[in-house]
Amino acid sequence: MSESLFEKYYETLDQAMNAINNRTFWSAYPEPPSGRIYGETAKDDGFAAYSARLNSPFNIDQPGTTGQVGDESSPFGNALGVTYPKANLDELFSAMNRAMESWSSASPKTRTGVCLEILHRLNKQSFQMANAVMHTTGQAFMMAFQAGGPHAQDRGLEAVAYAYDAMTQCPDRVTWSKQVSKTETITLEKRFRVMPRGVSAVIGCSTFPTWNGYPGLFASLVTGNAVVVKPHPLAILPLAITVEIARSVLTEEGFDPNVVTLLADTVSDPVTKDLATHAAISIIDYTGSSNFAEWIEQNAKHAQVYTEKAGVNSVILDSIDDMKAVSGNLAFSLCLYSGQMCTTPQNIFIPKDGIDVGGERKSFDDVAGAIVKAMDWLLGDPNRAVEILGAIQNERTVDRIEQAKSAGGDVLRESTAITHPAFPEARVHTPLIMKVNASQKDLYTHEAFGPIVYIIATQDTTESIALAADIAATQGAITCAAYSTDDKVLEAVESATSRVGVPLSCNLTGSIWVNQSAAFSDFHVSGANPSGNATLCDAAYVSNRFRIVQSRRPVTS
Amino acid sequence: MSESLFEKYYETLDQAMNAINNRTFWSAYPEPPSGRIYGETAKDDGFAAYSARLNSPFNIDQPGTTGQVGDESSPFGNALGVTYPKANLDELFSAMNRAMESWSSASPKTRTGVCLEILHRLNKQSFQMANAVMHTTGQAFMMAFQAGGPHAQDRGLEAVAYAYDAMTQCPDRVTWSKQVSKTETITLEKRFRVMPRGVSAVIGCSTFPTWNGYPGLFASLVTGNAVVVKPHPLAILPLAITVEIARSVLTEEGFDPNVVTLLADTVSDPVTKDLATHAAISIIDYTGSSNFAEWIEQNAKHAQVYTEKAGVNSVILDSIDDMKAVSGNLAFSLCLYSGQMCTTPQNIFIPKDGIDVGGERKSFDDVAGAIVKAMDWLLGDPNRAVEILGAIQNERTVDRIEQAKSAGGDVLRESTAITHPAFPEARVHTPLIMKVNASQKDLYTHEAFGPIVYIIATQDTTESIALAADIAATQGAITCAAYSTDDKVLEAVESATSRVGVPLSCNLTGSIWVNQSAAFSDFHVSGANPSGNATLCDAAYVSNRFRIVQSRRPVTS
Repeated sequence: MSESLFEKYYETLDQAMNAINNRTFWSAYPEPPSGRIYGETAKDDGFAAYSARLNSPFNIDQPGTTGQVGDESSPFGNALGVTYPKANLDELFSAMNRAMESWSSASPKTRTGVCLEILHRLNKQSFQMANAVMHTTGQAFMMAFQAGGPHAQDRGLEAVAYAYDAMTQCPDRVTWSKQVSKTETITLEKRFRVMPRGVSAVIGCSTFPTWNGYPGLFASLVTGNAVVVKPHPLAILPLAITVEIARSVLTEEGFDPNVVTLLADTVSDPVTKDLATHAAISIIDYTGSSNFAEWIEQNAKHAQVYTEKAGVNSVILDSIDDMKAVSGNLAFSLCLYSGQMCTTPQNIFIPKDGIDVGGERKSFDDVAGAIVKAMDWLLGDPNRAVEILGAIQNERTVDRIEQAKSAGGDVLRESTAITHPAFPEARVHTPLIMKVNASQKDLYTHEAFGPIVYIIATQDTTESIALAADIAATQGAITCAAYSTDDKVLEAVESATSRVGVPLSCNLTGSIWVNQSAAFSDFHVSGANPSGNATLCDAAYVSNRFRIVQSRRPVTS
Repeated sequence: MSESLFEKYYETLDQAMNAINNRTFWSAYPEPPSGRIYGETAKDDGFAAYSARLNSPFNIDQPGTTGQVGDESSPFGNALGVTYPKANLDELFSAMNRAMESWSSASPKTRTGVCLEILHRLNKQSFQMANAVMHTTGQAFMMAFQAGGPHAQDRGLEAVAYAYDAMTQCPDRVTWSKQVSKTETITLEKRFRVMPRGVSAVIGCSTFPTWNGYPGLFASLVTGNAVVVKPHPLAILPLAITVEIARSVLTEEGFDPNVVTLLADTVSDPVTKDLATHAAISIIDYTGSSNFAEWIEQNAKHAQVYTEKAGVNSVILDSIDDMKAVSGNLAFSLCLYSGQMCTTPQNIFIPKDGIDVGGERKSFDDVAGAIVKAMDWLLGDPNRAVEILGAIQNERTVDRIEQAKSAGGDVLRESTAITHPAFPEARVHTPLIMKVNASQKDLYTHEAFGPIVYIIATQDTTESIALAADIAATQGAITCAAYSTDDKVLEAVESATSRVGVPLSCNLTGSIWVNQSAAFSDFHVSGANPSGNATLCDAAYVSNRFRIVQSRRPVTS
């Protein structure tokens, strides 16, 4: 229960706190999967550690275990064959409540040190994690390493930094003196304790289990709550490894490991509704479908609920300098992880009469054609293609491609299956690009999750902006990209996206894409439209996960 | 729309921000109702201004007005005869949404300056406000001045300070550079805008309309929301004056006054349910009964809801040095405003075999008797008594005294009516003190709002602590007072009250009472038990009233 880990990592925390306040580029955990950084054997060691998990029970010795469950299979082909403890909720949460007593009594510094040590250990396991993320989510290796490893760890650290800042805004004790009359001064010693809300549930998603899971996990944990981690049944392994590491560090530091537990289930026998409505649960962090998020918001009224749901993201093309720079950038954004990022654009709005490109008028079809062509080039080599596309996480996403094609509009680019050079069974499909008119709203105004893109012919940019904003306000949106050579147009887009709570990226070309959200600088999901009620990460995200309870007594001099 | 008001009041804001972070004594608005501070004619001017309001329509020129309503009468005797605009909600909220556009586009500094000017003007009107608060709530003049005026203004300023701090944690723009390869560096300009949630509703209570109303009003207002103020139908005038002042300042500063509006109703024709469930409402601040607060929490799921409800507050007597110092302090706490403060103790737990007093064993009856005797002395002179007791706000509170007496237990002190020397019609009743056994739980474990006190005979202090904590956990509690000469006992109480989220006051004697909660230092309501879901005031109270929406674009060098 010492504060030595806090001291060990103080410099990292201090830099993180500076970063959240100045929003310039900063990262604690290196993103290149490089042997020079992580050790020359790290890649092989990570693969070996991952491989050793397969076809075995994943041992977590936690109370209330009633059996084993697990039914994951890799979108790249094989069944994982890993099983996890199945839990009796009442017994598990009783144990967590007991474990929370000493955890919540520890100082904020002690808890912060423990969380930073967990993040440090997770970072060391980034290659193991990359394999676990790749073979549950379908992400290609590079993304699985970066988004599943260091970027997720950065998001976790960001939450710790916000929470540490919030917990320590108020001192732990102070002497308060008030002169109440000419002759009498009252002097009190006041003490302020950070108290947790209770058992916190982190409900993970199937596409970015660690990146979306760590902020809630670490924000709740560092503020003194116990956390039950409930992964998506198709992506358990990355969070099970996380729980294992957290429990090791807790044990080493003298805490009851049941401060962090795993709750696993299967698609056919889900446990999330029982979890979300259990009276022991005080906080819920949920990432996933809008439907289920709304069910939780309506039914888990006893808990503080943070949600990241889905959205329909737009691109507004008004005028551009360099067609190739723009179409190349967009094509990469559309292909990356087969459109399975919550930040991937779905709708590209182009005026039906075309736009200015480098001072010349280009027709709608020219511009749409340039995007198709850029995608053709990008996906032309299967070796390159699969490293961008990854695999489709869920079979139902593949079905959706055919449904979108037959629902209406013109096919600009067919979706085709690609045989993965290394994993012949992998579920790889290129994006479908459809051309529709602005009036065909039933086709494009709802989320079509996966590799499905609509290029929409509008009256003009004013209509493009209005449609993008209206969809964001009603369906939610997590990103918007706009391209214009006219600052006034960009101001108009920004005014509209601000009102509907959509982060805007303008004129991105080169090695920066609208899908990307950088920890310590970009606020992911604004919380100001139906795509979610919280942001990763800000003070609002952390400051209601604990309460300050005070005492006061006269100072006896 | 200038920032000159921000500059004018910067020093006050800066001191307030220091105060919330160091929690030492600080106050911006002087609490003595003194002519030397507020001007020699301020008292008479305030009374005249209040008197001029009576028996007249209160003019607020706001859209959607469909008539006049109002049915207030003073607990000191007279009907106020003031009527207020009756509103069509749809029209009112449409106008507020329009007004919010320029208000939310103004800089945080501009909005902060406007709020500080409103508080400054409210402070200048503290004597008018004192009369308005006195003749709606029943508070005696001194409390009406302090709690309704400067203390409420301090609580408003505290909310502004927290909100300003939260809004400016993130810069409004920054240059972000990341080296993405050996040869390429991406440089983006990022902009961060503070965006409001929408129309915010402040639902006031009948006992402390300004003190409990200002934190939500100013927290929502300064973060860019429009605010509709819905006073309790029996205490409209103090908040109507507040709205009038806010609208004047907004108009003078070039904003649409409909950023702040009044929504009045009567007890017989209430509008609060329509308000709370209206789709235009994004934030609700509610102070009042637990039943209605829970109705709002269950039914206003579209809004961010902050509640301060009721609680059952305890005193734990374990051992004391000086009986008179303790009984005098407790008697004053019990009598102040006739127990109508949400911080007033209701239950006094004393071991049945008595306690140590100055080293000697005193029986339960001795100790209970000392409290009764202290109250006898305090209320012995009617002139002094009415300045402490004030008047009973609601006739139903008087009925409750008789009900409590007949429900069970032994009467230790009868409640009697007192004729107010200045207001013969005033509703003045002294506290009823009942003696009960710990086993008679149905008598004392629910809230008995008003001048009703239970002295409860327990097995020992351990049982006293357990009962106080259990009641707080199930019914809520806003304060707890404990008296012990043994530090270990106080630690045990503090451990228990921290777990159930009750602020604890130990061994208070002299001119400091458990009922008091000082802005900038004491957190009022912890948010960690059923007495409310938020605290006045902390970062959690303000940081979810706005969202940050960002944009980013390449820096063209």
